[in-house]
Amino acid sequence: MAGAGSAQVEAVRAANQAFYTAIESGDLDAMGSLWLDGPASASITCIHPGNAPVTGRSEVLRSFAAVMVGTPYIQFILTDVRIAVIRDVAVVTCTENVLTPGTERGAVFSAGRAVATNVFLRVDDRWLVWQHHGSPIIEPRRSPE
Amino acid sequence: MAGAGSAQVEAVRAANQAFYTAIESGDLDAMGSLWLDGPASASITCIHPGNAPVTGRSEVLRSFAAVMVGTPYIQFILTDVRIAVIRDVAVVTCTENVLTPGTERGAVFSAGRAVATNVFLRVDDRWLVWQHHGSPIIEPRRSPE
Repeated sequence: MAGAGSAQVEAVRAANQAFYTAIESGDLDAMGSLWLDGPASASITCIHPGNAPVTGRSEVLRSFAAVMVGTPYIQFILTDVRIAVIRDVAVVTCTENVLTPGTERGAVFSAGRAVATNVFLRVDDRWLVWQHHGSPIIEPRRSPE
Repeated sequence: MAGAGSAQVEAVRAANQAFYTAIESGDLDAMGSLWLDGPASASITCIHPGNAPVTGRSEVLRSFAAVMVGTPYIQFILTDVRIAVIRDVAVVTCTENVLTPGTERGAVFSAGRAVATNVFLRVDDRWLVWQHHGSPIIEPRRSPE
């Protein structure tokens, strides 16, 4: 397994950050360039928090288009970023601390928290998103499963 | 990518089913045998629905022990099982239709629904669980992310 500071881990970290930057900037072209393409892309799956899976490259990108259209402002502050690289596959888990426009009277921001598992494949030395699974963290902590 | 009916896909399907059978039967030894072991197992991550990630083999197995102790009866009926195999890694997404003892007066069962992403690695021709991420499906469907 690649060590914490290795070049591959840092490349995965950059790809993971680029994924969130694409959402923040509403850049669907950038988002499309980050996901796996070609024959294997039919196996792409994306689970948005609280939702059932969306499968296939075009369906997943369409779901992000809907997110971008429906979100005038969003900012992700990632914490607890853990990156595991084994051969050509990387799994990232992170906490998504999300800022969106305030919904309460007088509030500038609403803050939320979700957790994500993002799976990347290395193709021609680029780390491409294969799977994204985001889910809400429900407070207070309840017993698991 | 391996085809839908390939031997590898069927082996992953069996490993995925064994994971849920281990929870149903409260068999922590079986559960332990299904997860990645050895040097890479520090990178194991498990996200139980609504919870923050648990990382590392022993911590993850302890979390399943807590699930098993706290769950006198649980049954998983898996639907929408999708299996993607690329080289030595497999990603399974599935809907977990969960039956537990009834909490409403007069109800024999409670039914719930969650969605999971399970990542497997092939080691010595066995498919071992590397990551599990379960999350609630929140009805009615809301806009994603």
